Amino acid sequence: MTRLLLVNGNTSKTVTQKLLAEAERHAGANVQISAVTARFGADLVSDRASNVIAGHAVLDAVAHHQAPYDAVLVAISLDTAVEALREVLSVPVVGMTEAACWQACLIGNRFGVVMPDRNTLPLYRERILNYGLRERLAGLRAIEATVQTHHAAPVDSEVALHAAIMDLVVNEGSEAVVLAGASMTGLQRRLQPLVPVPLLDGISSGVILLEGLIRLNLPISHVNGDAKPYTTILSGLSGPCTELLSGLPSARTSI
Amino acid sequence: MTRLLLVNGNTSKTVTQKLLAEAERHAGANVQISAVTARFGADLVSDRASNVIAGHAVLDAVAHHQAPYDAVLVAISLDTAVEALREVLSVPVVGMTEAACWQACLIGNRFGVVMPDRNTLPLYRERILNYGLRERLAGLRAIEATVQTHHAAPVDSEVALHAAIMDLVVNEGSEAVVLAGASMTGLQRRLQPLVPVPLLDGISSGVILLEGLIRLNLPISHVNGDAKPYTTILSGLSGPCTELLSGLPSARTSI
Amino acid sequence: MTRLLLVNGNTSKTVTQKLLAEAERHAGANVQISAVTARFGADLVSDRASNVIAGHAVLDAVAHHQAPYDAVLVAISLDTAVEALREVLSVPVVGMTEAACWQACLIGNRFGVVMPDRNTLPLYRERILNYGLRERLAGLRAIEATVQTHHAAPVDSEVALHAAIMDLVVNEGSEAVVLAGASMTGLQRRLQPLVPVPLLDGISSGVILLEGLIRLNLPISHVNGDAKPYTTILSGLSGPCTELLSGLPSARTSI
Amino acid sequence: MTRLLLVNGNTSKTVTQKLLAEAERHAGANVQISAVTARFGADLVSDRASNVIAGHAVLDAVAHHQAPYDAVLVAISLDTAVEALREVLSVPVVGMTEAACWQACLIGNRFGVVMPDRNTLPLYRERILNYGLRERLAGLRAIEATVQTHHAAPVDSEVALHAAIMDLVVNEGSEAVVLAGASMTGLQRRLQPLVPVPLLDGISSGVILLEGLIRLNLPISHVNGDAKPYTTILSGLSGPCTELLSGLPSARTSI
Amino acid sequence: MTRLLLVNGNTSKTVTQKLLAEAERHAGANVQISAVTARFGADLVSDRASNVIAGHAVLDAVAHHQAPYDAVLVAISLDTAVEALREVLSVPVVGMTEAACWQACLIGNRFGVVMPDRNTLPLYRERILNYGLRERLAGLRAIEATVQTHHAAPVDSEVALHAAIMDLVVNEGSEAVVLAGASMTGLQRRLQPLVPVPLLDGISSGVILLEGLIRLNLPISHVNGDAKPYTTILSGLSGPCTELLSGLPSARTSI
Amino acid sequence: MTRLLLVNGNTSKTVTQKLLAEAERHAGANVQISAVTARFGADLVSDRASNVIAGHAVLDAVAHHQAPYDAVLVAISLDTAVEALREVLSVPVVGMTEAACWQACLIGNRFGVVMPDRNTLPLYRERILNYGLRERLAGLRAIEATVQTHHAAPVDSEVALHAAIMDLVVNEGSEAVVLAGASMTGLQRRLQPLVPVPLLDGISSGVILLEGLIRLNLPISHVNGDAKPYTTILSGLSGPCTELLSGLPSARTSI
Repeated sequence: MTRLLLVNGNTSKTVTQKLLAEAERHAGANVQISAVTARFGADLVSDRASNVIAGHAVLDAVAHHQAPYDAVLVAISLDTAVEALREVLSVPVVGMTEAACWQACLIGNRFGVVMPDRNTLPLYRERILNYGLRERLAGLRAIEATVQTHHAAPVDSEVALHAAIMDLVVNEGSEAVVLAGASMTGLQRRLQPLVPVPLLDGISSGVILLEGLIRLNLPISHVNGDAKPYTTILSGLSGPCTELLSGLPSARTSI
Repeated sequence: MTRLLLVNGNTSKTVTQKLLAEAERHAGANVQISAVTARFGADLVSDRASNVIAGHAVLDAVAHHQAPYDAVLVAISLDTAVEALREVLSVPVVGMTEAACWQACLIGNRFGVVMPDRNTLPLYRERILNYGLRERLAGLRAIEATVQTHHAAPVDSEVALHAAIMDLVVNEGSEAVVLAGASMTGLQRRLQPLVPVPLLDGISSGVILLEGLIRLNLPISHVNGDAKPYTTILSGLSGPCTELLSGLPSARTSI
Repeated sequence: MTRLLLVNGNTSKTVTQKLLAEAERHAGANVQISAVTARFGADLVSDRASNVIAGHAVLDAVAHHQAPYDAVLVAISLDTAVEALREVLSVPVVGMTEAACWQACLIGNRFGVVMPDRNTLPLYRERILNYGLRERLAGLRAIEATVQTHHAAPVDSEVALHAAIMDLVVNEGSEAVVLAGASMTGLQRRLQPLVPVPLLDGISSGVILLEGLIRLNLPISHVNGDAKPYTTILSGLSGPCTELLSGLPSARTSI
Repeated sequence: MTRLLLVNGNTSKTVTQKLLAEAERHAGANVQISAVTARFGADLVSDRASNVIAGHAVLDAVAHHQAPYDAVLVAISLDTAVEALREVLSVPVVGMTEAACWQACLIGNRFGVVMPDRNTLPLYRERILNYGLRERLAGLRAIEATVQTHHAAPVDSEVALHAAIMDLVVNEGSEAVVLAGASMTGLQRRLQPLVPVPLLDGISSGVILLEGLIRLNLPISHVNGDAKPYTTILSGLSGPCTELLSGLPSARTSI
Repeated sequence: MTRLLLVNGNTSKTVTQKLLAEAERHAGANVQISAVTARFGADLVSDRASNVIAGHAVLDAVAHHQAPYDAVLVAISLDTAVEALREVLSVPVVGMTEAACWQACLIGNRFGVVMPDRNTLPLYRERILNYGLRERLAGLRAIEATVQTHHAAPVDSEVALHAAIMDLVVNEGSEAVVLAGASMTGLQRRLQPLVPVPLLDGISSGVILLEGLIRLNLPISHVNGDAKPYTTILSGLSGPCTELLSGLPSARTSI
Repeated sequence: MTRLLLVNGNTSKTVTQKLLAEAERHAGANVQISAVTARFGADLVSDRASNVIAGHAVLDAVAHHQAPYDAVLVAISLDTAVEALREVLSVPVVGMTEAACWQACLIGNRFGVVMPDRNTLPLYRERILNYGLRERLAGLRAIEATVQTHHAAPVDSEVALHAAIMDLVVNEGSEAVVLAGASMTGLQRRLQPLVPVPLLDGISSGVILLEGLIRLNLPISHVNGDAKPYTTILSGLSGPCTELLSGLPSARTSI
């Protein structure tokens, strides 16, 4: 049996349940998914400061999860703390948005990204460019929809989403479109029949890429961290978090 | 049951068998793999001109394969004609080298690539940069090994390969290394215990990514090709090749 | 006397005649131009798959041309197989679109490109960016005109072309505009008086650059190909094509 | 009087004292500097995970500082949480490494960076490239020196540092060199007489740039954050941290 | 006392007075500013040819200034001859537009630039991209305003300026906006209350950055120029200009 | 008859004669070349400050040339003032180094550049990158040779040059090498038989590209300069220089 750990970097447990349900819909037959939720921070991260807090919260939530797992899906759409988790864990780690972007690159040349909340557009832009995907990113669009507004007026947000996707296709040459943001989860199934390009979602992409990485069964990199000139002293963190960052054998062999 | 089609763009059937064996080693339980070999061109493509011929040969080989399939693995390490196949088929298509590079990007920040044959280094360099991966590519190294030299002196080529990998790790900061080229197939298993970073191979990466794309079950893009201002007239091609390029329903629904 | 070989990678002999006539209009006094046409593939290449076929057809057409020549103009506007021809021939080879782009860079800082057929825009975009010209490319525009539509309604396509050029000048800051595509050939003369920037055409640019390269009389590069660790075995190709790719002295000294 | 707040994202108070002393050495006549230290995390951050924790710790430390201030110097050499602080504060915020890099760009065309600890090199590389400084970065070098090793064998680490600087000057064309890392603080004064290019230090650069930004007296950007479609709910954070992230008037007008 | 030399590369002494007044408004208490004006060339440089002339005029004007100074502000908004002055002087040199751009990068992620005169937009675009700031430049806009038109119809040009700034903020995501061009000087104070992002001006930014560089008191780079294989012979230049370029001690120790 | 004007931006008339002789060696049968020399500045420009002066001197020298001409070759290897000349003249203008680089791009994928004088390497690097040729530039190397040292010890400088070229070929993958700098002129003929890649020289490349541009007979761009919001007032320049910059009909129709 394969065990995935889904980490929601937002503190909203409602969102965690929604993300978990979507993940289970896409998981393979023999895959069991556990979900943990950030114990502190914003219910829905949408600015730089709460994203910084979410970094700590993602590490903390993983550290507090006792049961073993074979891979981690970082289920916060800014892929918060993904690189840090890779450094301290010995299992594959993938962020939901990088997962969707990478799948998009295997489908067509250039992809677009739609997100809710205009304020987050620069954050997504920076994250995706920092992945080195400038040449593959056709464009970004924001709509003004959240879990709340979507529940209040679902048709309105779907109309806006459809318009944004078509704008990315017609005017930017997007050959695939990533729907980014937890509040988008599942909407790709509703919109897909209405648009001419594949829609990608971080949760389904992430679950599938992680199952693949588990099968590849690669060793973790030993390049860094084995011969540090200096041993870090940690303080003020929770016990599990301290263990995780200390690179204790228990932490690095969490399988 | 899932059916993969492996297309060897080299004309060497020995290589096809080796690639097929490697692919089967990594395929999921319910996956059946067929392999087709280029009907014309070079036995092992290692220059620009024979790579151009291989483009035609890859399309031709796929066109002549009658049985249905769910995805195509382009098993020639310059990923020849991958984009063209995506355009004419309605199933996922992945090249072996892009598969390994994309997996590498999910493991660490920057990766290196080792290939046999110094003459092919610029071809790999161009291909990988044209994927937009400049920011993720730490470096490239060539060793002078082929199927022939490797069989004649296997220890020598493994020593050279080990040195090239370590050079990419120590001097270029590679956090993962892709072994590119059909003659490398399987060597990643021999070298992995000797090096401190994950080694990636296009066949295993490609099989696993394709199984994932099949599960995602995305529609093909309808952006282009549906409203051409001009209907192309094809001539001088084999019947199956003409059908494939004509976008006949049979071709586009080969599932 | 200088002998140019013009290779049309499309199978349309009507187009070949048109391209040849344009080339002769620009050739120097002492230049004789021969033209060969692709023996197989699409009459007018406008998608990735037929462009892949055209690569083989360009090599094949050059291989079947018996008479000696001093340079080759690849007269298919995606510059198909240009790099492969450079590898196997010992004479200068230039693609029509790269020729026009390079001339544009000697005239002003940034240039635009207009092409017929919206579906081909991504193909031109990729080709030009792969030349490394991102910093010089101001923008791309497509009109919906082909040889057919232009003959049916010449005024309409010229109006569309004029609008596209002005858009590139006014909104993108293009200081020169390349008209790309065989069906555009000659239109630059009609449109030039109506627009405020120089218009460039691949055939005139290519003929003139090739005459210059012949005069420079540079040796071919011996960097690659002279000490291959492995001798490629070719099969299934026409005799002339096999000879061309085999690097037989006859092929490499076709002057 | 101008009041600077220096935030050490490492938990070592010894380092804070050293950084504060260096800052006071460079501060203007009428400048008073307060220093706060991370309340949790690593004593000296040198990996991705503890840097993620430091993000939270930087916000937390600033939030707990009650006295008013006119600008913030983020005195952890990966410039941790700088962008997040800019978002929630209404005063200028500068990171010590960006400060040194920006000063370097006003002195010459390309600069190099030397840091202690080979493991941190990729972290600096990513940070500086993410600033968009690829064209200005001549190269990076790591020496193996820390506060500990430097105290144990100061001459050894200065010899290594001198060699690294000269390597960046001679082989990479660096016209200025940034010494990055808290353990480097003050070494620029020792090494400067021995090398032919200006040496830059984040603390002196940061203090001076911040004094300048205070004098410019620019308003903060109101582009984002004023019309959010959704009000974030924070939980599990300390009271001051919650206030800081809530954008309460008290937080945003801490001057 | 600190002595700044402001060099106007335009020949208009009216503009020099305006720039000097603005500089004095921002200078520190103990700073004395002298201003010199180009002795030949265009009154307001707005094309490439007069900008080339201005390069000579800037060097000439500095050379003819006898009194000592501690830093030079190049007060022509294309930052003409800044790198050349750095080469021959032993004091800090900053251009007004680079100063504003660098300050913008310390305030937000991406900035926009507004300039008068559509014809100069490509010149600013090239200059800023050549600084390596592609990733930070959100966009450029030109309005049609000059000192003349602004005096004739000040409200009109401010309306146009406001519209251009808002376009950069709303449509390009600019988090700060640089007003470039001598005729813009001072307008940032009028417009700032009307727009939601900080406005930057080259004179205030330049004065403040130079005061900071003087305080850093860095040595000049000795990398180049000390061991030339060849001693240049100068002719046809004014005496002071010849001395300046000859690297005479007087020139290189003008403090 | 075709008339070229060669402008030497260095004041050395010996160099002008050498450049003219090389140009005449490559000129077509019906081409007459006139040469003008900078009237002021450095005899051999090798630093930024004298290059700035050379910009004025190039414009001045062209302005003082009374006889008509059909194209201008800027024969100073930093291509000084090329863009400014394009702006004020109505005939083609090409710089010698851009000419060689552009020819190199039509021969192979990546090229290297060798120059005399290590101090000038950053100047060439900046110029070539500012042309947008980053993707095509394999590397740069400097040797320590000048006209003087070459005359004193010709064998030594050729040995150094050969070593630099081979370094660019073997270690950087250069498929062609540009010899930059007036003192290199003619050496490409001596070295070509000894190296495996084509050597390019700015004078031969420039003459040939200009003859081609003359044949293309393109109009000049009218995008800029026709509707300036402000008429520049020039002062302090020589009469011919003032006329040239004033865009007087005489200047713009110098053919």
